[in-house]
Amino acid sequence: MLNARPSAMLDGLSLLGSSHAAPAGTPFRATDPATGRPLDGDFYTAAPGDVDRAATLAAEAFETFGRTSGTGRAALLRRIADGLEADAEPIVARANQETALAEARLRGELARTTGQLRLFAAAAEEGSWVDARIDHADPARQPAPKPDLRSMLRPLGPVAIFGASNFPLAFSVAGGDTASALAAGCPVVVKAHPAHPGTSALVGRVVQAAVAAEGLPEGVFSLLFDVGIEAGLALVRHPAIRAVGFTGSRTGGLALVAEAAGRPEPIPVYAEMGSVNPFVVLPEAASGRGPAVAAALCGSLTLGVGQFCTGPGLVFIPEGAAGDAFLDALAANVGATPAGPMLTAGIARAYRAGADRLAATPGVRACARAASGDGPALGAAALFETDTATFRAHPHLAEEVFGPVALAVRYRDAADLAAVAASLEGQLTATVHGTAADLEAHAGSLAALEGRVGRVVFNGVPTGVEVGHATVHGGPFPATSDGRSTSVGTRALSRWVRAVCWQDAPEAVLPPELHDANPLGLRRLVDGRWTGGR
Amino acid sequence: MLNARPSAMLDGLSLLGSSHAAPAGTPFRATDPATGRPLDGDFYTAAPGDVDRAATLAAEAFETFGRTSGTGRAALLRRIADGLEADAEPIVARANQETALAEARLRGELARTTGQLRLFAAAAEEGSWVDARIDHADPARQPAPKPDLRSMLRPLGPVAIFGASNFPLAFSVAGGDTASALAAGCPVVVKAHPAHPGTSALVGRVVQAAVAAEGLPEGVFSLLFDVGIEAGLALVRHPAIRAVGFTGSRTGGLALVAEAAGRPEPIPVYAEMGSVNPFVVLPEAASGRGPAVAAALCGSLTLGVGQFCTGPGLVFIPEGAAGDAFLDALAANVGATPAGPMLTAGIARAYRAGADRLAATPGVRACARAASGDGPALGAAALFETDTATFRAHPHLAEEVFGPVALAVRYRDAADLAAVAASLEGQLTATVHGTAADLEAHAGSLAALEGRVGRVVFNGVPTGVEVGHATVHGGPFPATSDGRSTSVGTRALSRWVRAVCWQDAPEAVLPPELHDANPLGLRRLVDGRWTGGR
Repeated sequence: MLNARPSAMLDGLSLLGSSHAAPAGTPFRATDPATGRPLDGDFYTAAPGDVDRAATLAAEAFETFGRTSGTGRAALLRRIADGLEADAEPIVARANQETALAEARLRGELARTTGQLRLFAAAAEEGSWVDARIDHADPARQPAPKPDLRSMLRPLGPVAIFGASNFPLAFSVAGGDTASALAAGCPVVVKAHPAHPGTSALVGRVVQAAVAAEGLPEGVFSLLFDVGIEAGLALVRHPAIRAVGFTGSRTGGLALVAEAAGRPEPIPVYAEMGSVNPFVVLPEAASGRGPAVAAALCGSLTLGVGQFCTGPGLVFIPEGAAGDAFLDALAANVGATPAGPMLTAGIARAYRAGADRLAATPGVRACARAASGDGPALGAAALFETDTATFRAHPHLAEEVFGPVALAVRYRDAADLAAVAASLEGQLTATVHGTAADLEAHAGSLAALEGRVGRVVFNGVPTGVEVGHATVHGGPFPATSDGRSTSVGTRALSRWVRAVCWQDAPEAVLPPELHDANPLGLRRLVDGRWTGGR
Repeated sequence: MLNARPSAMLDGLSLLGSSHAAPAGTPFRATDPATGRPLDGDFYTAAPGDVDRAATLAAEAFETFGRTSGTGRAALLRRIADGLEADAEPIVARANQETALAEARLRGELARTTGQLRLFAAAAEEGSWVDARIDHADPARQPAPKPDLRSMLRPLGPVAIFGASNFPLAFSVAGGDTASALAAGCPVVVKAHPAHPGTSALVGRVVQAAVAAEGLPEGVFSLLFDVGIEAGLALVRHPAIRAVGFTGSRTGGLALVAEAAGRPEPIPVYAEMGSVNPFVVLPEAASGRGPAVAAALCGSLTLGVGQFCTGPGLVFIPEGAAGDAFLDALAANVGATPAGPMLTAGIARAYRAGADRLAATPGVRACARAASGDGPALGAAALFETDTATFRAHPHLAEEVFGPVALAVRYRDAADLAAVAASLEGQLTATVHGTAADLEAHAGSLAALEGRVGRVVFNGVPTGVEVGHATVHGGPFPATSDGRSTSVGTRALSRWVRAVCWQDAPEAVLPPELHDANPLGLRRLVDGRWTGGR
């Protein structure tokens, strides 16, 4: 039975609401990065008419879906989660073939995906995230009567979501962007990542079926395939699309930002573009528990062949004996890490080129390069070392090399570290290892890091992003295109909405969220006081 | 005594923290729009070094001001409000000379300005707006321990604020943008509008004195003069500036958006660019209380010589006898409105050109043009009429003409109205006059308008924006450059912040907002439940 369904699903056609596109043009296939061989299944790039159809259906769907209750959206999200679990075997199997990510990792990623769908379901159902506010009228106020004002967050409209190469489930078709957009009331048109079209098709069918089963308008979800960039760009250009979510390279993200800004009506783009994620080892931590930190750091930077946007690519280590010992321990760990297949041959090539560029920079010393192995897309871990002066003299040393590599930067003292921390670009994360005395002695560095990142991790590792209400997976440019946003956690809902205000409106035209009786039991700001809520 | 202070204050030099710029270049003067004559006081455009000094001081100030308590920021805002009230006489007198706005209007605007400073003070002091969230750790969770995550909104850094021509107080030096940015913890560099430099100087000295009296770093506030655009553009380009607030023309706003997007690190721009603010008269309202609505509408569209961004420039009136009578009543009111001096001669010229362009459009009929009077910058009210087909055939008919003019568009029926409503660009407001039966019969139009505006007003007028917690003074592009934002009301705080997350942080490094004991008594989302708050 597991074999029967995937073949039927892998017809390789874009999903346009409840139907699908016609095959046209030259099909493409996915590649198994472990073998370099093409996988079963032809996929067809969406034609311009397909893009238009998907966006138009989404706009039609928005007229009702944008006004559904939180309970209705929650039911959809939970049904998608249930469907993914029901189809877990074929989805994980295909994702494993298409990405070479380990089956255990993919099962964990699927659990994260269903977990975040259900977290957003709970948030939509509870409903207070809409930030409902009521300022009652005062007709007797002088010199002018005070009107009745009520406002709440409302969905923007159809959004375009771009699947990521490195998270075929959690940041792709039914990933965090899709979950948050649907929870907010926005129909979604996904552009599948061409490296895992089969996984995308399997997940897309689950979402399509869930929309139908909930009796929602078909345009709530569509899925477009594209071997290149044209369908994605056409989608961002389409007048019905009101916002864009993306996880991937800086080049790709900035291209979408430019496209969206050039529209007659510009729209927001939330592009998560990765970063080098500074990892700071403070002096007492280096001397007191260096080996344990080095082992944890190596595990984090080589996890999934270093293909996490939160992977620590820049390690600040004190000069001196304790730092030397820490670096030696880290180098030993890195050198002993087996090479692994990366997501695509192109990513592996870019990784090797980036590591070679580090190695060729004057003042940069190679500490460890793991055996490179023999395979079409293998990535071997590497560690380099330099000093703060060299680091600051060569801006490319601060740029992300996507893969299992880190550059150790040796700092002299607290002032040296604070200065280099303040010079960093925006980052998704910073990690600090230190004792209480360390943290107190390096308050300046901590303040600088807080100002440059979305999340500061203490005495841990940055990979393994917890999905919660307090999560921030974002950060100042260039980590993301919009430093005010997060793409993980329930704060992500705020990306797809804007506040709308009603003045002196009869209750009959107000959404229930703004009725005086508070029928949904929301936490609301009423006349300046927080009331209600669970 | 009132005479003594202004002359000392009008030295015409940019305020750079606690000091001032040196005079350089050719000075400029303000003009009295009522007489066309220059006013006392030479003002000097800020030199590039002055811009750099202001931005650099702001960045230095941010290191401490960004971490001050809400109580401290509230004290600053209240001291500014007190200072404005103490200097009300010279401020209002000078503003009256520079803008020709009536003294009563300016006193009202000053009251609004101090009122919103105190509203933001109260919000900063209460503190819950920072949206503090705590997800506690669960070390026993399987398959991986759950970390402790805490996050809250933190200020972005120094912001650039551009004063508006039409609100010399409420949207200028100590206006809503400045109040919300200071409340959020962002130092402010204001670029004064060149049409009212003396008013800006008087207000700027009040803010400068308040910063000093509160013992805050001088860079919390600076004020730059510029007769052209160079100082403003240099400010937006400066790397220390992290966000921009602007109220003015579409041309000016889009220039700032382009400049900010072209920076090595792009920054958000909140440009409020005005709109035509559709005003819809539904059939039963037209027949039942046409004369009262027509009088209120005329008052709103000619208020302050039509120089409000929320002024109703587009009026939808039903075809037929009741609509005819409504239009006649409106025309009689408009024709009887005396001409008044506009803010500048340039604005008056642009207004007359815009009205002439309406008059010259085929299918557009002039219903009323008030006597134009005799003065250098007079604006005379005007009313034109057309049908929905002509309106949709000529896109320029939907563009704002800044001044006391309205275009009446006659609609056939509910479907015709809904179609034209859906075709509108983004707007700050829409106003609907109707009975309960009207609103029910025109639900489609209401839904379309809600999707295109920031605020929907029922049976009232759009001018006179109430400043509260529920206020939305924003709207989809091109009403603003960021349709997710408002420039009025406490929701405006969210423009100047981003969420920062701490993972497994010792309490010693956490802001008090995120301490377990909730020492500030904030409303917080703790483990998914809203707790605390007043």
